[in-house]
Amino acid sequence: MERVYNFNPGPATLPVEVLREAQAEFLNFDNSGMSIVEISHRSKPYEKVHNQAKADILELMGLGDDYEVLFIQGGASLQFAMIPLNFATKEKPGAYVLSGTFASNAYKEAQNLGVGEIAASTKDENFKRVPRQDELKINPNAAYLHICNNNTIFGTEFHYVPETGNVPLFADMSSDMLSRPVDFKKFSLIYAGVQKNLGAAGVVVVVVKKSFVEKSLETLPTMLRYDTFYKKNSLYNTPPAFAIYIVGKVVAWIKNCGGLGEMERRNKIKAKLLYDAIDNSDGFYRGHAEKDSRSFMNVTFRLPNEELEKKFVAEALEKNLSGVKGHRSVGGMRASIYNAMPIEGAEALADFMDKFRKANS
Amino acid sequence: MERVYNFNPGPATLPVEVLREAQAEFLNFDNSGMSIVEISHRSKPYEKVHNQAKADILELMGLGDDYEVLFIQGGASLQFAMIPLNFATKEKPGAYVLSGTFASNAYKEAQNLGVGEIAASTKDENFKRVPRQDELKINPNAAYLHICNNNTIFGTEFHYVPETGNVPLFADMSSDMLSRPVDFKKFSLIYAGVQKNLGAAGVVVVVVKKSFVEKSLETLPTMLRYDTFYKKNSLYNTPPAFAIYIVGKVVAWIKNCGGLGEMERRNKIKAKLLYDAIDNSDGFYRGHAEKDSRSFMNVTFRLPNEELEKKFVAEALEKNLSGVKGHRSVGGMRASIYNAMPIEGAEALADFMDKFRKANS
Repeated sequence: MERVYNFNPGPATLPVEVLREAQAEFLNFDNSGMSIVEISHRSKPYEKVHNQAKADILELMGLGDDYEVLFIQGGASLQFAMIPLNFATKEKPGAYVLSGTFASNAYKEAQNLGVGEIAASTKDENFKRVPRQDELKINPNAAYLHICNNNTIFGTEFHYVPETGNVPLFADMSSDMLSRPVDFKKFSLIYAGVQKNLGAAGVVVVVVKKSFVEKSLETLPTMLRYDTFYKKNSLYNTPPAFAIYIVGKVVAWIKNCGGLGEMERRNKIKAKLLYDAIDNSDGFYRGHAEKDSRSFMNVTFRLPNEELEKKFVAEALEKNLSGVKGHRSVGGMRASIYNAMPIEGAEALADFMDKFRKANS
Repeated sequence: MERVYNFNPGPATLPVEVLREAQAEFLNFDNSGMSIVEISHRSKPYEKVHNQAKADILELMGLGDDYEVLFIQGGASLQFAMIPLNFATKEKPGAYVLSGTFASNAYKEAQNLGVGEIAASTKDENFKRVPRQDELKINPNAAYLHICNNNTIFGTEFHYVPETGNVPLFADMSSDMLSRPVDFKKFSLIYAGVQKNLGAAGVVVVVVKKSFVEKSLETLPTMLRYDTFYKKNSLYNTPPAFAIYIVGKVVAWIKNCGGLGEMERRNKIKAKLLYDAIDNSDGFYRGHAEKDSRSFMNVTFRLPNEELEKKFVAEALEKNLSGVKGHRSVGGMRASIYNAMPIEGAEALADFMDKFRKANS
């Protein structure tokens, strides 16, 4: 089958150049006579990959020596627990902004540990927007304020960096990491499951101020302590080497494309194509997100009825437009247009949306 | 470079047939028009891979419906913590057999939680053998007895299944899982980081009696509860799909080869080649493990002095025999001859050992 345009929310489409490179060298990595999945994580060729990926991530983010990149398994869902376990206490709780499902899941882990509190929530509006700065009630004694920067399911995104005073800002950027320039220095900890914008499922990239991870609580299990990863360069135990290797290739691809500014340029073009198709549809397509919270990564919309929605999914697939079905919390459609989605993919979907509307209005 | 014989302890050599298959379909998995690293974990083609891998593992182990296969990230090192967190208490502690570094690391996690005790140890003998049945002091009130079935670093292996009375038997089989038939029904929980005998680093296979994982403590973080994985078929969050896919291909390869009996036949031939080279060397090569504890997976031995050991490593590499340097805890050499190491690889190493000895005696 020919290559499809894959609008799935994650695992998601990857740059075809990255896939081709990985395929070509899959049996003989760096002329080692073995595969990247066979080579020792203590070997020089592997370490080069590992350290280059880290350096490229910091460079793209414009961060210096006071930040560290960690590679941790378990998905963002394990970070939801590691963060309060490492940083929050009953006296200094973690404060959470509830802007969607994953933001709420992060809060639930802190709550279950008795160390979480809510700083703002748009749950009553079915998360159709992110809270505004003036809605954030930040406990000045909080250990951190946690936000989910882009809400994959609802198609909303923070278009501002919250001001938090002296409270450290933490962010789950699983679905918009490295998709555009952000003032990353305002964040103390950023993490992302890589299977959306950064690679193949199996690793989380954590970018954190070193001062936060130099020494963790000794009562925590080894693999839940950030200092285990920090002190051992994320090589305390065998890392998910293939996943890190693909991250390395993806960030190198981002650099080669021109960096985060170029990613933003492309992502805005793609998002505009789809939001225009919604806004110019005379109400045939109804966006879920409020306009000023619209995500550049996940475009969510409903059709006039569920029957048409099923028809849309089926006919889109016939045009090689795959994965446009939305999450059940929102219904309708969701088109994920991460870094690796070509502009041509968004053009093809916008074109299909237009034709489908005309044929079914 | 031509393909080397890779004797590394993990990540380790994989069946070249598996690598070639993965390479061939890397850009178009199951005719989906996308890569296995891009496809949704909620899609039918992925679920087929996931469920087939589980079924094949249980079939190879001769286990029935009362066991479940879980796929968990974080390495065996995270299992070292999850096991006591889920199963041990101060009243019913976890009992540990210390037979090597990883066995001891597992114990340390339980000890750190205040719920571990030692049932036996061969630390005073630098772990040159595993404890005998008559040395096991099993607290009848223990939540489980934990063993490490094969000790990668020291080159020792359990050649018996401990009798534990009513105490459930748990085993880390990271380095000998599916390498030979074992009476797996005697175990309540078996786990293995896959990067030795089962695949590419990034997932742990946990095979467990369902009764142990149906309901976990609600106070534990979601990702540390076994029931999270059990109830959601290891799909609560995005799984490490590529790692599971490779596991699926490796277990299918084991089945195609003839199953665990055939693996044992091959592994015994390989081990005999190397142990014979040691035993027939007039003391030039000195095995670390006592004979009745010798591992079929990792053959550890010293040479007369460290200078010769360095020379051995260097000259072996010239013959495309890679990764024979031992761990610093033992020194000398370690040849890992997991399932995927061809008999020809062991023959080549045995032949080299013989020639090297003659040239340097």
